Amino acid sequence: MHDPHTPALAIHGGAGTIPKSALDDKTLAAHHAGLRAALTAGWCLLAAGAPALDAVTAAVMALEDDPLFNAARGAVFTADGRLEMDAAIMDGKARRAGAVAGICGPKNPILAARAVMENSPAVLLAGTGAEAFARSQNLVFMPETYFQTERRRASLSLELNRRLAGAPDTRTDADRHGTVGAVARDAAGNLAAATSTGGMTAKLPGRIGDTPIFGAGTYADNATCAVSCTGTGEVFVRFTAASEIAARLRHAGQSLAQAAPAVIAELLTHGGDGGLIAIAADGPPVLTFNSTGMYRGYVTSDGILHTAIHREDFTTQIS
Amino acid sequence: MHDPHTPALAIHGGAGTIPKSALDDKTLAAHHAGLRAALTAGWCLLAAGAPALDAVTAAVMALEDDPLFNAARGAVFTADGRLEMDAAIMDGKARRAGAVAGICGPKNPILAARAVMENSPAVLLAGTGAEAFARSQNLVFMPETYFQTERRRASLSLELNRRLAGAPDTRTDADRHGTVGAVARDAAGNLAAATSTGGMTAKLPGRIGDTPIFGAGTYADNATCAVSCTGTGEVFVRFTAASEIAARLRHAGQSLAQAAPAVIAELLTHGGDGGLIAIAADGPPVLTFNSTGMYRGYVTSDGILHTAIHREDFTTQIS
Repeated sequence: MHDPHTPALAIHGGAGTIPKSALDDKTLAAHHAGLRAALTAGWCLLAAGAPALDAVTAAVMALEDDPLFNAARGAVFTADGRLEMDAAIMDGKARRAGAVAGICGPKNPILAARAVMENSPAVLLAGTGAEAFARSQNLVFMPETYFQTERRRASLSLELNRRLAGAPDTRTDADRHGTVGAVARDAAGNLAAATSTGGMTAKLPGRIGDTPIFGAGTYADNATCAVSCTGTGEVFVRFTAASEIAARLRHAGQSLAQAAPAVIAELLTHGGDGGLIAIAADGPPVLTFNSTGMYRGYVTSDGILHTAIHREDFTTQIS
Repeated sequence: MHDPHTPALAIHGGAGTIPKSALDDKTLAAHHAGLRAALTAGWCLLAAGAPALDAVTAAVMALEDDPLFNAARGAVFTADGRLEMDAAIMDGKARRAGAVAGICGPKNPILAARAVMENSPAVLLAGTGAEAFARSQNLVFMPETYFQTERRRASLSLELNRRLAGAPDTRTDADRHGTVGAVARDAAGNLAAATSTGGMTAKLPGRIGDTPIFGAGTYADNATCAVSCTGTGEVFVRFTAASEIAARLRHAGQSLAQAAPAVIAELLTHGGDGGLIAIAADGPPVLTFNSTGMYRGYVTSDGILHTAIHREDFTTQIS
């Protein structure tokens, strides 16, 4: 007899973490609280029997609403001082998928991605076309100022000045990039993944990273696993990070616990720093990264919320 | 002893072929001539020892310039009567990649994709940001009228009227979509793939299909294969068509001749009609499709140009 599927949820708030030495107690506590709020939003649904798709949507919405993380409110700026957000969602049951790229308007880009999946013939819509579609779906829109934060504007300013001066890039991961994401397994055994990001600080206008590329930054298939990535997106795209993990499960007989860290280690050899969260049909979620840290958390059937930022032990709290 | 690598080139002009019954002799001959021109453009380079990357670029440029095919000149229209082109190129040697999406301006979108790969930190640029980057690269731009053709405008009109009338979709593949692409292996054993498209007739503005999604419509890795796809792009994205073929070569011990047709057959069970061309480190190119036809051609070391449209035998001509 096979055990019934046990629900589980994992989240990340990006591999672009503030260095441990620069993280004061208050900021540290705020990040843990933000991660717990996202876990709670998703877990409430999963524990009540809701689909994995709803859990990852709720968890990512919570992270999008929190200005500490680089997605929606708190997104990083492009080189020309604008905001261009990408988001993607995938349903492992039927491998349905939806994504948006280069948008600014919908309060929660992940809802725009979900609307693409559920209510359009497309899997990826970009730019003004994507924004027009989101409006047609009656999603809540916010003015550009809602998404802007002083911290991200300062990061842009620093980076543009550095480029003008031709100085070497000594930025921390936190100044360069970030992403939020969630993966979940529900009681019916369905997997889902969702990812949302503002991209990289001072990115080229129009640049699309790995987030909305299915098989790179976002992926879900009940037969293998659900994956959400964060890091230097270009390398994750070139090496099809997420679908490579799924391929090792499907064709090479590897476990998720073997495949996910191995792929993340390989990406680093190609200059791809970052991490990912993943979940398979059975077993606990896997959270792995090759960077100095990754804002992350998970919760399984005992309901205990686990959160961590660097390579320390997980902080736990009962949900 | 292993034989030295033998150069080979395959191209497609899209799985959206005109039905055999509607293809008069003149139009038939024009399509074969267009395919031969593209093969010749690529083969001249390969036979002279040029890299696979240059061969696929030249072959795709020839198809982009030919108004018979749905890429650049002759691209299909969006639902709001505009042109939004996608193109991608990938170098199997170092898995470098570059793509553009939703652009109208560069005479050859594949050159914009190649510039993204070679001269930007990004792998994918979309919309006005991509066009601005292409201008910065001094690429040749053409006015929108250069790309427009009466045939594609008539297809848009028919489709919009059909939607207004709520009539069933009885369009042929040729009226719906199309793509051009090339894969090559050079004498050094390097693989490359390139794809370019106008997308689907009457597509949602902002819609991005599988063409610029590495691992879906375009892929190259010397260790496995180079792939260029054509068809209902959304299904190719959801099932990561190209990287699934590569995964079967890498992890399941399959040959390209086994994996490529198997994946194309599986895509059809999910509503994905279309086809692909692919080439591995050894052996002839594989050209496979589940649709009624696919404009296609290939040339190997004997220099004979093979072209076909439906399921007939290849027409041959000495290069």
